[in-house]
Amino acid sequence: MKLYTYFRSSAAYRVRIALNLKGLAYDAVPVHLLKEGGQQLKPEYRAVNPSALVPALDDGGTVLTQSVAIIEYLDEAYPDMPLMPSDPLGRARVRSLALDVACDIHPLGNLRVLKYLVRQLGASDDDKNQWYVHWVSEGLAAIEARLAASPQTGRFCHGDSPTMADCLLVPQVFNAQRFNIDMAQFPTIARINAACVELPAFADAHPSRQPDAE
Amino acid sequence: MKLYTYFRSSAAYRVRIALNLKGLAYDAVPVHLLKEGGQQLKPEYRAVNPSALVPALDDGGTVLTQSVAIIEYLDEAYPDMPLMPSDPLGRARVRSLALDVACDIHPLGNLRVLKYLVRQLGASDDDKNQWYVHWVSEGLAAIEARLAASPQTGRFCHGDSPTMADCLLVPQVFNAQRFNIDMAQFPTIARINAACVELPAFADAHPSRQPDAE
Repeated sequence: MKLYTYFRSSAAYRVRIALNLKGLAYDAVPVHLLKEGGQQLKPEYRAVNPSALVPALDDGGTVLTQSVAIIEYLDEAYPDMPLMPSDPLGRARVRSLALDVACDIHPLGNLRVLKYLVRQLGASDDDKNQWYVHWVSEGLAAIEARLAASPQTGRFCHGDSPTMADCLLVPQVFNAQRFNIDMAQFPTIARINAACVELPAFADAHPSRQPDAE
Repeated sequence: MKLYTYFRSSAAYRVRIALNLKGLAYDAVPVHLLKEGGQQLKPEYRAVNPSALVPALDDGGTVLTQSVAIIEYLDEAYPDMPLMPSDPLGRARVRSLALDVACDIHPLGNLRVLKYLVRQLGASDDDKNQWYVHWVSEGLAAIEARLAASPQTGRFCHGDSPTMADCLLVPQVFNAQRFNIDMAQFPTIARINAACVELPAFADAHPSRQPDAE
């Protein structure tokens, strides 16, 4: 398997965690989002993923895109070390927590969006940071409320082993910390994040541990 | 089943299509996103969904959130009239097309985001419209490229019967048309949309056909 990745991409980070949790080896193909005006925007990469976003996963010649779809695929095609519960309600809970990150938080802080705010709308650095902090804080507060209220929350987001929800939560917490968001506001998330990052699968997926890290 | 919905919410529209395609009856509970400063922001609705977003689905007392997770749940819990292919690669393709809408397009044009642009960043009506048109056009162009290039595209996004991908695509096209985006740029999407909207399941889910329509 080949993973088109960028060390600091939070969506790529999710897939790296999932691959590691499942014990699947892969070759990292770095796509630098800032160099050369963005390598993801070049025709060569658009031929891999017309959306010009990382990650993309090449499994035996078929290219898959969208981190959540990739993780679900890995879990279906390589069933050892499941990342999803077996019951439909549990699966719905894990998916919705993952999508709370993937749909409600992450798209608003993506590089291309922050660039648009600055270039097209003339946002200042302060405006941009406030925008980022606003959406991340609002999104994490909603996830915290869900996790804190549910008896299904365990050592991890859903029970006592990591699921797809944890694969999405940890990179989002990493990003929140980069923007100095105080995680003490979100004690359940902070506790789960701490439990995750001590596992080698999560630690090895960290941006600083990637071959293209700067 | 009870669906917390708003006639013009594109995420609720997705779930209405899925429920109709699967022939599942439901009671619509309208949540008006504009009245009373937004009924979704009231404590009563936050108790249903801490994210303060529609839709939410109550199936026998369990509340599910996130439209994509809800549709996947419906497909698992009520397997008649499947909305997902049976092979992992086909499922990954359908999921990734759905997420191209749910993660890369829709979050950027959501009501709360457009409000932030105007109120916090002082965006003009023109700025707001350009922002909307930019992300929708870019996102639909990527989906068009994928659909046009794949032999798996049929009468619908994936083969010749509707899947979750169509449930997401049609509401996004509806929104694009509200903002006068020329769908002739996206001929494959336009063709699939036309095939969908002639089906009663899609037609009955249309915003104008909802009990809370204005």
